[in-house]
Amino acid sequence: MIDSVSGTRTDTESRRSGRAVSSVDDAVMSMADFYSWFNTRTRANSFQVERIAFADLSGWGFDPDTGNLVHESGRFFSLEGLRVRTNRSWVSEWGQPIIVQPEIGVLGILVKRFDGVLHCLMQAKMEPGNINGVQISPTVQATRSNYLRIHGGAGTKYLEYFRPGSRGRVLFDGLQSEQGSWFLHKRNRHIVVETDDDVPVDEDFCWLTLGQLHRLLLLDHMVNMDARSVLSCIPPALTGPHDEHAGDDSFTHAVLRSLAGHGTAVHESGQILSWLTEVRARQELVQRRVPLMHLVEDGWRTGADVIDHRDGKYFDVIAVAVQGSNREVTAWTQPLLAPKQAGLLALLVKRIGGTLHALVQARSDAGMLNVAELTATVHCQPGNYADTPPEHRPPFLDYVLTAPACRVRWDVLHSEEGGRFHHAQNRYLMLEVEDELVAPDDRYRWMTLHQLTSLLPHSNYLTVELRSLVASMRSLTPRM
Amino acid sequence: MIDSVSGTRTDTESRRSGRAVSSVDDAVMSMADFYSWFNTRTRANSFQVERIAFADLSGWGFDPDTGNLVHESGRFFSLEGLRVRTNRSWVSEWGQPIIVQPEIGVLGILVKRFDGVLHCLMQAKMEPGNINGVQISPTVQATRSNYLRIHGGAGTKYLEYFRPGSRGRVLFDGLQSEQGSWFLHKRNRHIVVETDDDVPVDEDFCWLTLGQLHRLLLLDHMVNMDARSVLSCIPPALTGPHDEHAGDDSFTHAVLRSLAGHGTAVHESGQILSWLTEVRARQELVQRRVPLMHLVEDGWRTGADVIDHRDGKYFDVIAVAVQGSNREVTAWTQPLLAPKQAGLLALLVKRIGGTLHALVQARSDAGMLNVAELTATVHCQPGNYADTPPEHRPPFLDYVLTAPACRVRWDVLHSEEGGRFHHAQNRYLMLEVEDELVAPDDRYRWMTLHQLTSLLPHSNYLTVELRSLVASMRSLTPRM
Repeated sequence: MIDSVSGTRTDTESRRSGRAVSSVDDAVMSMADFYSWFNTRTRANSFQVERIAFADLSGWGFDPDTGNLVHESGRFFSLEGLRVRTNRSWVSEWGQPIIVQPEIGVLGILVKRFDGVLHCLMQAKMEPGNINGVQISPTVQATRSNYLRIHGGAGTKYLEYFRPGSRGRVLFDGLQSEQGSWFLHKRNRHIVVETDDDVPVDEDFCWLTLGQLHRLLLLDHMVNMDARSVLSCIPPALTGPHDEHAGDDSFTHAVLRSLAGHGTAVHESGQILSWLTEVRARQELVQRRVPLMHLVEDGWRTGADVIDHRDGKYFDVIAVAVQGSNREVTAWTQPLLAPKQAGLLALLVKRIGGTLHALVQARSDAGMLNVAELTATVHCQPGNYADTPPEHRPPFLDYVLTAPACRVRWDVLHSEEGGRFHHAQNRYLMLEVEDELVAPDDRYRWMTLHQLTSLLPHSNYLTVELRSLVASMRSLTPRM
Repeated sequence: MIDSVSGTRTDTESRRSGRAVSSVDDAVMSMADFYSWFNTRTRANSFQVERIAFADLSGWGFDPDTGNLVHESGRFFSLEGLRVRTNRSWVSEWGQPIIVQPEIGVLGILVKRFDGVLHCLMQAKMEPGNINGVQISPTVQATRSNYLRIHGGAGTKYLEYFRPGSRGRVLFDGLQSEQGSWFLHKRNRHIVVETDDDVPVDEDFCWLTLGQLHRLLLLDHMVNMDARSVLSCIPPALTGPHDEHAGDDSFTHAVLRSLAGHGTAVHESGQILSWLTEVRARQELVQRRVPLMHLVEDGWRTGADVIDHRDGKYFDVIAVAVQGSNREVTAWTQPLLAPKQAGLLALLVKRIGGTLHALVQARSDAGMLNVAELTATVHCQPGNYADTPPEHRPPFLDYVLTAPACRVRWDVLHSEEGGRFHHAQNRYLMLEVEDELVAPDDRYRWMTLHQLTSLLPHSNYLTVELRSLVASMRSLTPRM
């Protein structure tokens, strides 16, 4: 099914080699072997990224009529202007550059059971915007053109497992959104396929258990955004029956109970849907694409090698030249969106009746397709609010920034999509809060993890950032 | 809770007056009384609609820079141009006028049990585009401004039942799409609230059972589009346990089994979601708003009193002056979209293992928000295909047009939204087909009614036309 490639090993071989040193985890590869393999792949996939002037981009240029930054083929993506009108009380209208990419790509993870334990086929992949080059990515990240084989060529490894009529069982298949403040209506198809085949494992790939992925998710810049996002979609049934007493402590019990949908939720699921419908109907979000050159009046300036905002906030648009060793095309140039500072994604959680509840907010971003989506309790780039009056600062921002260490359940830096963003990093935090903490307004609701994940089969409910947080919790299995 | 209005009667009074003549149906009002009441309301709500020139519109005009037809307040809706690019083999790119209305309105039905039997509070309401003036509409049809009470004023009757914190129980609350070929990304909030209050019944309102509504749904131009759409969303649990042996014949049994989710579906629900995701990811649908005046190159002409296409197909845009007796504003002018001919919506069904399955297609229309939605087996304006080569005519169109009468389970003309469309009517057909009929390509799937209705809590799965068909089947209760 897959052509034999130099350096591939069969599952049986992978399993044998890993088996000898795996004891804690029923994994085909030990964590020590994983790190050796990952370091080797990082060195093998060396590449250079250099900032260049827009004039030095190859195939990319500014449209003379609009000032939009476009590719001459009309493919890939473009940078355009978006004008937004809302009924918010603070900054209700604005214009901003936005990435327009109407195409839906495919992000797939191939899974397989070894001795009954679920493993995910993950890739060590470099992206030009990554802060550290190579990160763990899904089995497949493919554009629609690759998927439909419009342009012929070698194609993407393992893509055949994700096509209709493949021999695998489709366990999840849905469209999920990406960053609403940087993308206009962008979505990717997330697909999880289980196979029983003896899969040849290419040298850039390895099988990891959910428990192993959970550990890797606690490391900075290790698991890329696409991987986190697809991992969040793995159906609970796949991770085996959640034995809610299997964890080491009562916090883990509360997480597992919450994932399994046991215990009583504060709000019924129908009430949650009604609340979100009310927010979406009440929220004005009028989006109008405008020529990028019209954003001058909003403070956006186009220079020789950067598009930026006069206040030094939000993000820049830059151009880079990439020289890599492990891509179909080994050298290319492209624009990237470079945020001015790291974002903060903090999920406040508490145990209610022994079941973990997360305080989610319904958030409306400039480029969202469906008005509002659920996201973390705090979701912002704090620097953008440095000069904002206290009453318009994001609720809980200061609470989170000053929270005592004993409340922090995890605290990790993850990268956002390195194919579009340059050094975009967010701090992901989970904080367990005191009982008396209440939601500040009607934009917030306490939900169980089961309630959150049961919305994932349908599009545009959870932001990509909230899915990252969910991924960490979903991979928390009793057998870690 | 509701101000006492001249002509209102309490539930107790309604119930008493209806009770005496109701025997077949446990309804508070007999069908005979309903027709008397409806005829009275039709006469009371008399109004005139006259075509006028665009220049005679009050508050509306063509924007000099774009040629878009807009209201001077920036509110209501506008007529703009839309350019669409797809990867279809036939007519892959085109430009067309489209209604842009980013606001989400509220369509609500208040329900209440009388002696345990569910009743819906329905309104006799006139809309300027209706072919016959007054039709049965939901309890509430409100714009967001009405809902948020932005403009003050008398307000919409019964609207308080649909606000957060009302005393009712919210039984359904979700966003649903409208016609994708005429509207850009339009959706309305559909909400069903159950009350135990003694509700004063205004003279334009009456309580009807689902069985009564089912009968009315078989009449031409009786139940308006908004009512059909909200009725389709009434949760099955509300209509009482479906006794699948209660019907008179095996066809009714098969419908009730299908609604109840009993029996085996041809495809599992996960497979259906995966199939629809595949269609959405594969289908190109690039939408770009353009000035209406740019559509000249697509054959659209703007005259003194009509915008039309040089081929005489699709639809016109016209202007009307309305003089009515039963609206807050008693006289006004507005544009309307006037289809050139009636549409055809045919749902092919068959019994598979004793459970009714419907053959739905995943259809992609110019203005859809989510690329593709499920709709009837045949969904078109046949006249638009008069000169189309046979291989590009919609599958089953000729089959339906020549089907023998014995296969027809129902055949009725319904109006589409009379507030936006002028004399827009569609023929809704349900045909039971022979066993050997198979889906022509991967755009079609056999689904049970339970599978269809379980998608309704989430947005943009079923077109408004398919929801009309579902409404007729959902209201088919054992107690008719």
